[in-house]
Amino acid sequence: MRELKISDMIQKLRKSKKLTQSQLANYVGVSVTAVSKWENDLSYPDITLLPILAAIFEVSIDKLFSYNLSSNGADIIKKIKKNFEEEAKEYDNRISKLIPCYEQMIHSMVSVIPFDQNDSIKVIDLGAGTGNVSKVIKDKFKNAKITCLDISRNMTEMAKLKLYGYSGVKYEIEDFYSYNFKEKYNVIVSSLSLHHLATDDDKKNFFKKIYDSLYDEGVFYNLDLVLGSNNIIQDLYISKWKAFMCKSINYEEVNNRWMRKYYEEDSPSKLIDQVHWMENIGFKNVDILFKYFNYAVYGGMK
Amino acid sequence: MRELKISDMIQKLRKSKKLTQSQLANYVGVSVTAVSKWENDLSYPDITLLPILAAIFEVSIDKLFSYNLSSNGADIIKKIKKNFEEEAKEYDNRISKLIPCYEQMIHSMVSVIPFDQNDSIKVIDLGAGTGNVSKVIKDKFKNAKITCLDISRNMTEMAKLKLYGYSGVKYEIEDFYSYNFKEKYNVIVSSLSLHHLATDDDKKNFFKKIYDSLYDEGVFYNLDLVLGSNNIIQDLYISKWKAFMCKSINYEEVNNRWMRKYYEEDSPSKLIDQVHWMENIGFKNVDILFKYFNYAVYGGMK
Repeated sequence: MRELKISDMIQKLRKSKKLTQSQLANYVGVSVTAVSKWENDLSYPDITLLPILAAIFEVSIDKLFSYNLSSNGADIIKKIKKNFEEEAKEYDNRISKLIPCYEQMIHSMVSVIPFDQNDSIKVIDLGAGTGNVSKVIKDKFKNAKITCLDISRNMTEMAKLKLYGYSGVKYEIEDFYSYNFKEKYNVIVSSLSLHHLATDDDKKNFFKKIYDSLYDEGVFYNLDLVLGSNNIIQDLYISKWKAFMCKSINYEEVNNRWMRKYYEEDSPSKLIDQVHWMENIGFKNVDILFKYFNYAVYGGMK
Repeated sequence: MRELKISDMIQKLRKSKKLTQSQLANYVGVSVTAVSKWENDLSYPDITLLPILAAIFEVSIDKLFSYNLSSNGADIIKKIKKNFEEEAKEYDNRISKLIPCYEQMIHSMVSVIPFDQNDSIKVIDLGAGTGNVSKVIKDKFKNAKITCLDISRNMTEMAKLKLYGYSGVKYEIEDFYSYNFKEKYNVIVSSLSLHHLATDDDKKNFFKKIYDSLYDEGVFYNLDLVLGSNNIIQDLYISKWKAFMCKSINYEEVNNRWMRKYYEEDSPSKLIDQVHWMENIGFKNVDILFKYFNYAVYGGMK
């Protein structure tokens, strides 16, 4: 519970109205002990009493809280932003400890977007999260119109903060899988999201949906968790991933938190299968740009 | 020309035989000036005269050179080894500046060899070079029988040195492309070599030859330079490769030496095409283990 500086104001306003604690208690309909507690900062008035208190004192509720929109408002927004910034920083800091070559993979994905830097390309970022990919795109393609789609309101707030001041960015809070693509795009990107689609068929269908939502010559690139083509390869991948995480996270946390989360929540598919699905759907120039064992950047052109 | 300490010995032996310079010159069939020059360290006797000189002095040729097999021999071998070691070290040091993630790629390739560590697997390393891959295989598979195949005698000497003390390694100096596989293998590996095959068809045919030379369930993995699936991707690859080299080599050398060498000598093919060729030939579990832009580790199982 945040600390509220209301006790002094109640006492001051009561005295300016020449009321005793007992009189105020009677007007408001609480015990005299309650009023005493408010004024001694031992409890706060129930929220439903605030308009009554304001009316009795003939002040705004803002006044009760010593709240001034133009000064405190900016302060509070600043504080909220700071909290979000810290959370976003914490999120981004964590992600770089969990995902090898994260920055490099994002940049490789953005580097192969085959448009002129001044083109007004239409982009959708599926599972935009805290906006890391969208930001790199906006930094390169100033005139890009980006839709950041994510199921998490919190993540989207962080993305808004990260992309504060960038124009041409809109946000939609929705599950990308059930998302109804209303328009076509030049670029569809996704990062660390599609492995949440539960089955191979879900992914195959979703790739088709993506293909259909691209303009001709448009591109789709995905940065994601993938499986190796057999158990021996997959074992190598997991051991390399664990070794990477253990560089900055202790072994118990890697096993009990992150690997457990992986086995419980993630449904990656074999990279080689995904390459075939893309090719069968009609994607051209399908390629794997970057692969660090169980992480890959791959995609193609319509 | 290495310095030879022979002058004192000739003079000493001539005097012990009580011969003048002129007499020795007559016996050997050279001018007296020549003998004088030998004894004053101004020239060496022609190599063809060494047996004659030894015969006249009734000593071994070793004696002429003050050479003692058991002491000097070991010294000389040690010296040669040291030279080779420095050259090999220089080669390996250079390779790690030219090829991103080189060690990691080799280890990923060896990690997915699907045999028990004690199995007497038969392995051939095509373009074995200085033996980097073979050494990692021998370190894991003690009983592996490895053939190191390379066109370069010098590289092979370095490989011999690197694998000195390992049993079950044999060396063949031959061009791998025209190599006649006489037996079958459990494991065929290759590193930084197959891109020398000039055309896509050469590589396709060679993959078939490799497939035919594997036992069932045997594996083929290749660590190599590859092309991106279109120009935009390829440009990204080249820029990332240059950026990597420029971390330890100056820009002029990168451009004028290594990039020139790349454009003049190397004939990489698209990774995605190579994946398809392998699959069409019949390889199972084809996968890309690792990819750092224009470098990849990929292969499959028979």
